[in-house]
Amino acid sequence: MQSRTANQSKTVSTDLVLPGETNPLHNLFGGELLARMDKTASIAARRHSRHIVVTAAVNHVAFTKAIPLGSVVMIEAKVSRAFSSSMEVYIDVWIEDRESGERIKANEAIYTFVAVNDAGRPMKVPELVPETELEQQRFDAALRRKQLSLVLAGKMKPSEATELKALFVE
Amino acid sequence: MQSRTANQSKTVSTDLVLPGETNPLHNLFGGELLARMDKTASIAARRHSRHIVVTAAVNHVAFTKAIPLGSVVMIEAKVSRAFSSSMEVYIDVWIEDRESGERIKANEAIYTFVAVNDAGRPMKVPELVPETELEQQRFDAALRRKQLSLVLAGKMKPSEATELKALFVE
Amino acid sequence: MQSRTANQSKTVSTDLVLPGETNPLHNLFGGELLARMDKTASIAARRHSRHIVVTAAVNHVAFTKAIPLGSVVMIEAKVSRAFSSSMEVYIDVWIEDRESGERIKANEAIYTFVAVNDAGRPMKVPELVPETELEQQRFDAALRRKQLSLVLAGKMKPSEATELKALFVE
Amino acid sequence: MQSRTANQSKTVSTDLVLPGETNPLHNLFGGELLARMDKTASIAARRHSRHIVVTAAVNHVAFTKAIPLGSVVMIEAKVSRAFSSSMEVYIDVWIEDRESGERIKANEAIYTFVAVNDAGRPMKVPELVPETELEQQRFDAALRRKQLSLVLAGKMKPSEATELKALFVE
Amino acid sequence: MQSRTANQSKTVSTDLVLPGETNPLHNLFGGELLARMDKTASIAARRHSRHIVVTAAVNHVAFTKAIPLGSVVMIEAKVSRAFSSSMEVYIDVWIEDRESGERIKANEAIYTFVAVNDAGRPMKVPELVPETELEQQRFDAALRRKQLSLVLAGKMKPSEATELKALFVE
Amino acid sequence: MQSRTANQSKTVSTDLVLPGETNPLHNLFGGELLARMDKTASIAARRHSRHIVVTAAVNHVAFTKAIPLGSVVMIEAKVSRAFSSSMEVYIDVWIEDRESGERIKANEAIYTFVAVNDAGRPMKVPELVPETELEQQRFDAALRRKQLSLVLAGKMKPSEATELKALFVE
Repeated sequence: MQSRTANQSKTVSTDLVLPGETNPLHNLFGGELLARMDKTASIAARRHSRHIVVTAAVNHVAFTKAIPLGSVVMIEAKVSRAFSSSMEVYIDVWIEDRESGERIKANEAIYTFVAVNDAGRPMKVPELVPETELEQQRFDAALRRKQLSLVLAGKMKPSEATELKALFVE
Repeated sequence: MQSRTANQSKTVSTDLVLPGETNPLHNLFGGELLARMDKTASIAARRHSRHIVVTAAVNHVAFTKAIPLGSVVMIEAKVSRAFSSSMEVYIDVWIEDRESGERIKANEAIYTFVAVNDAGRPMKVPELVPETELEQQRFDAALRRKQLSLVLAGKMKPSEATELKALFVE
Repeated sequence: MQSRTANQSKTVSTDLVLPGETNPLHNLFGGELLARMDKTASIAARRHSRHIVVTAAVNHVAFTKAIPLGSVVMIEAKVSRAFSSSMEVYIDVWIEDRESGERIKANEAIYTFVAVNDAGRPMKVPELVPETELEQQRFDAALRRKQLSLVLAGKMKPSEATELKALFVE
Repeated sequence: MQSRTANQSKTVSTDLVLPGETNPLHNLFGGELLARMDKTASIAARRHSRHIVVTAAVNHVAFTKAIPLGSVVMIEAKVSRAFSSSMEVYIDVWIEDRESGERIKANEAIYTFVAVNDAGRPMKVPELVPETELEQQRFDAALRRKQLSLVLAGKMKPSEATELKALFVE
Repeated sequence: MQSRTANQSKTVSTDLVLPGETNPLHNLFGGELLARMDKTASIAARRHSRHIVVTAAVNHVAFTKAIPLGSVVMIEAKVSRAFSSSMEVYIDVWIEDRESGERIKANEAIYTFVAVNDAGRPMKVPELVPETELEQQRFDAALRRKQLSLVLAGKMKPSEATELKALFVE
Repeated sequence: MQSRTANQSKTVSTDLVLPGETNPLHNLFGGELLARMDKTASIAARRHSRHIVVTAAVNHVAFTKAIPLGSVVMIEAKVSRAFSSSMEVYIDVWIEDRESGERIKANEAIYTFVAVNDAGRPMKVPELVPETELEQQRFDAALRRKQLSLVLAGKMKPSEATELKALFVE
């Protein structure tokens, strides 16, 4: 199976925040954003694997900036690392100022997907080859996150999580 | 006001066809696609004008290919020509084959938007400068479409629609 | 196959504009109206043909009047002309003033549908017989619109579009 | 205040049953139909009263026929009787067979609305004058239903519900 | 078949009122509440019967209190009485004040469901055994409501509706 | 400010999986579940704090079991620990077998919310007092998760994350 670059899975979704999707403070409802990121990220994982994919985990999402009604929101998703049949997808969310055209970062999120066949069985996926410096950083951190998630789930001993341990034991 | 290129307004929206959006033949419902194209195209018009925009007309939409449930759909919109306060936006819709990754053209559509201020009054918009050959073709045809729409609305005499008339009178 | 009148396909849909369907100016979102008209018009085409129908084209939609939040909107659709397996449907959109009960015209639109069987194959449809003067005008103009759409798609030479040509060459 | 006929409030809504609105047996979800009837009936009450209206009660709804996916559903609502500031609205729901064009009755429902001003205060409404025999029957029964609902709510003694009592005593 | 208590079918749904679900007075739209109650009540009926259930009737719904945008709404449904294959479900709707945490009653509703198999055929359901005083009251009244609905539908003579008649003939 | 128990914030939402919410494998769409959990968890945080709350982070969500179309899903959320103005909410998701009535665990998720006033400014929240053993475990782990999230965000040195460090350094 031929490896692929992060850019080959890049998926962009540009959308408006309509009144029906806001919370009582007139900002985009958190749950609505989670759902949109899931859709965009699942397309990136599908483009990398060329299989049906299902969401396996949401690793981390930080809502650092409220997204007001009427905003243009750009969700950009790229596979950050591929494991045997799972893929970590890194999502960047941008808001665009209408008058200046400037984009500011609103959120980051990391989702994990598993490639499956029609019967729901896991399928092998190609390796991911990072190209830019940012892609390399996210690729490296993905291993630590995977170890962390295994440790938290009790499926790996902390002592075996070598990448992670290095963070805490100088 | 500085002119802008078609590429500066380029807006991409990538999405999945879910079961709740299909017709009885299990293809994307026509009305749902019209609504999605409207949203994506309105963002392109807003990026060009940096104003609030409202849909003024749908000039033409041809549904040449059904889009089946589960498809990845890419909607790409670019301003094709700017008039005083209105903009024609050209929309290309692509479906992506999951296994081969190939994209095939499913639809084309042309919408017109008007830039307005908060009170709903029309605002001037920058000129559009076509760069590629395709952009130039669409830019030229936009004038014929504008004349045609004025003729059909009875706001221009056929004899004055010079660009259009040239088509019929060799 | 017995011909049918425009009135036999007449389809009315009366609805409210709710907060979740408005744009940032608190008017009905263009895309939402396009979707509703598609549904209503497809029922008219289905009533005429008694087959499953799919949207083939949106010929023209002019958004002449904004439709504010809380409005009662009446969408009325009638088949305006039938061709071999396709039907042009003419749609009139009215807003109703709550206090006076008066109706004003907000929009007009023209959609084309194709009748198909379960396998998606085109099916013959009955002829349409116009009865009123307005129905006759729309019936006549439908042929010009059909020629125009064939010319624009490069499937008919302008010189053969006799009905259309007559408009430009006195 | 001038009285109005039932026909002056007549409101028709024609719609399709799409996959996203069905239950696990692939029929229109009960709750979805209740919501659609509420919208259509509220427009009828608004047309009669020319005020904002709010749903006061759902008197009775019998779901006698399942409405399968892909059906054309016609909801027809007319005010059946007006009281001081409330209106009873009678709703008939029809399904239309695509091939024969025949309509069969699927449901009946009775809703009550109250006319209010912007502050939510009840407003007087015109009297309703029944014209057809069916309208007269529904008009008469509306009084019994009103008495019944007052009795059930403990706001009227059964002995004072003269219309209703007559049903049970010889 | 073993009888069950009302409590065994108790179903709670807690939700927020979002902007997309309100009417022009910024309160929860009546139709939306009817749809939510239908869903919650159908789960209660399903828990009692352990079969697929379909809505058979909405017996009575009184909208006594408007539910404003941003409210927390609690819908609580319990089977109030089981008949051969049908079940009456009693629904209480509460709004919760954010600051004090107090709950006030906003609505009551009574729906009837029928248990069916995959082919839509009615299935026998267990008896319901009321435990509290309120459950006993609702259990008793359910029989009167059933008789009333049979009388109104012309399927029972008023003289045979013994429970109901007792109300009017002291 | 008086401390509160986890139970006082307990929020239950019971719902059905309808066709419009499923993915191409006919299971509940991941994004839809994320949105529903966000709503239910936000109500728990609001009950604890009695303030408006906004989603600050999704700490971890593991999708261990697919949730098929037609399932009854129970989402139960309780505040697991309160910090100065933020609250960690623990969410358990259960699916219920229709025939046996048994519940199986489908998912777990952890969200963080911040209490704010109308202007969006953070507000102090009461302390949470765990009562059961499970609540105590989740309370303890919440501190490690908070430190971890500060370390990952570069806002705390690994060496200062005492609770977390203890995991890796025997």
